[in-house]
Amino acid sequence: MREFTFDDVRAACDAIRPYVPVTPLVQSYCLGDGERKFFFKLESLQHAKSFKIRGALNKMLSLTEEERARGVGAVSSGNHGSSVSYAASLLGIDKAVIIVPETTPKSKVERIRHFGAQALLVGKNYDEAHAFAVNYIAENGLTNIDSCHEDVYVYAGQGTVAVEILQQNPEIDMMVVPIGGGGIATGVALAAKALKPEIRVIGVQTAACPAMIASYRDGVCYEEYPTEGDSVCDALVGGVGVRSYAMLKDYMDEILPVSEAYIRKATAMMIAQEKLVVEPSSAITAAAALEYPERINGKQVALIMTGGNIDSELMAKLLQENG
Amino acid sequence: MREFTFDDVRAACDAIRPYVPVTPLVQSYCLGDGERKFFFKLESLQHAKSFKIRGALNKMLSLTEEERARGVGAVSSGNHGSSVSYAASLLGIDKAVIIVPETTPKSKVERIRHFGAQALLVGKNYDEAHAFAVNYIAENGLTNIDSCHEDVYVYAGQGTVAVEILQQNPEIDMMVVPIGGGGIATGVALAAKALKPEIRVIGVQTAACPAMIASYRDGVCYEEYPTEGDSVCDALVGGVGVRSYAMLKDYMDEILPVSEAYIRKATAMMIAQEKLVVEPSSAITAAAALEYPERINGKQVALIMTGGNIDSELMAKLLQENG
Repeated sequence: MREFTFDDVRAACDAIRPYVPVTPLVQSYCLGDGERKFFFKLESLQHAKSFKIRGALNKMLSLTEEERARGVGAVSSGNHGSSVSYAASLLGIDKAVIIVPETTPKSKVERIRHFGAQALLVGKNYDEAHAFAVNYIAENGLTNIDSCHEDVYVYAGQGTVAVEILQQNPEIDMMVVPIGGGGIATGVALAAKALKPEIRVIGVQTAACPAMIASYRDGVCYEEYPTEGDSVCDALVGGVGVRSYAMLKDYMDEILPVSEAYIRKATAMMIAQEKLVVEPSSAITAAAALEYPERINGKQVALIMTGGNIDSELMAKLLQENG
Repeated sequence: MREFTFDDVRAACDAIRPYVPVTPLVQSYCLGDGERKFFFKLESLQHAKSFKIRGALNKMLSLTEEERARGVGAVSSGNHGSSVSYAASLLGIDKAVIIVPETTPKSKVERIRHFGAQALLVGKNYDEAHAFAVNYIAENGLTNIDSCHEDVYVYAGQGTVAVEILQQNPEIDMMVVPIGGGGIATGVALAAKALKPEIRVIGVQTAACPAMIASYRDGVCYEEYPTEGDSVCDALVGGVGVRSYAMLKDYMDEILPVSEAYIRKATAMMIAQEKLVVEPSSAITAAAALEYPERINGKQVALIMTGGNIDSELMAKLLQENG
């Protein structure tokens, strides 16, 4: 596995800049006081509503002309799928195939197709879709745009978020980032520490699926991990990436499990009070500030809002239960 | 009345730049096709969630040191009140008094106080609060920060929105802007035409209170105007400003009445599909694109989203009725 370093992030910044706008870093209305300021990094305002465009685009920009002409494939029903579709449209890659399980909600399939990619519905669940995809992508000569678990280009793309934050506000002394597979957390932590060694980076996981916390506790990389009960964090459940597991401990100051109750409350707060639509898997960073006020204690804290793809029914429900 | 010209807008751009971030111009996900692109200018992301900061701040920056030391006053229960409060905090103006009717919802009073101003609750309605305010402001030697009806500095501040839009995307060939009193519509139309004479600027009013349309139809400046039935556009009901009435016809290509049904639908679309929290008085520009597809027919259209202060109960209700 090739090493992932800050040089990769720096190169990614230059590569993706013509295609990806600098997303706003806006001050919180609800959080903070005279002593502390909180800021939201709004990756939820990306055109495909997710930070995943950064990694997907950086990876595709690394392809040769011939590889681009052959096309790309990916397996994902969520933000990665629509981001790969959007990145392909930005680069004029005509053939982009996203494999999703047959059970994927219509709205998500439409979001993938909206940006121009083909969506193939295969298999009863993610594992079946994934098994099909690996063969399909290989047999058709496509390049697999992995949803972030190992690829240096993808990790480096996600890391550009931290570079932007510190350019926008060099006084930021703490960043809080969600951990699902661990891609953005690893990219952000590595880049933040490279630019500002004294910064603290806090990872957050839903308490319903604390796969990274359990991996470090047990000294085992759990590439699959069960979810206990229901979670509103569909982007944060499941196991962790091998590379993330190997690297994160060197760059991250702490990983906190955040309760689903706080995540629901924080999602409603973000939408109703802050007037920002973010998905629960992003609002988890604000939830951490509410649940752990003594730990999320920087003077100027950046909470990374990774995406905005929340289902409107869930949105209405959370607004009502916290109204 | 001193003339209002593009030089005032240019000066306002320079004056407010250190205090007001450039708000994003993001492409719509739902609107547009191969021929047409729609963009949202997100004034809803201002820290006080409204474009009104621009005019309030530009006015306050024009005050002498002595005037600033004496303080400012305003009458408004809405976005203007919280924007004046926020502008005062940015400039270190210690005394800022916002007069609001006693019936103002607690959340709006809190929003004014949040940024540091005093909120005085006086009178059973806006007219009573206004009558009190005029005397109070004069007797206490405060400067009245008018909610945009006449002041050149306020008009010029609002006009900076158009300058930013054309800097962000010079290809914009149509702007759509809400008309309440007419301040932002006049500022935007004047600035847009000064920079790009061939651009078309369309004003939109709720059909429940088409005060400007009626004023031009009747040749009378209706400074007060009744609302027919209920309107979700609390920022757009009431009469029009004398200066706006005098100027707007020279700069605006068309004014369209938009039905409340389309406004409700568009507000839900903005939140549920575009993942952007905007108030109905802003979503009206998207509603116009839905209701008048043959009129909102630029190749690259900027829809100005003036603010984000929508009540969370209304938000939940609109999401449900359009779910």
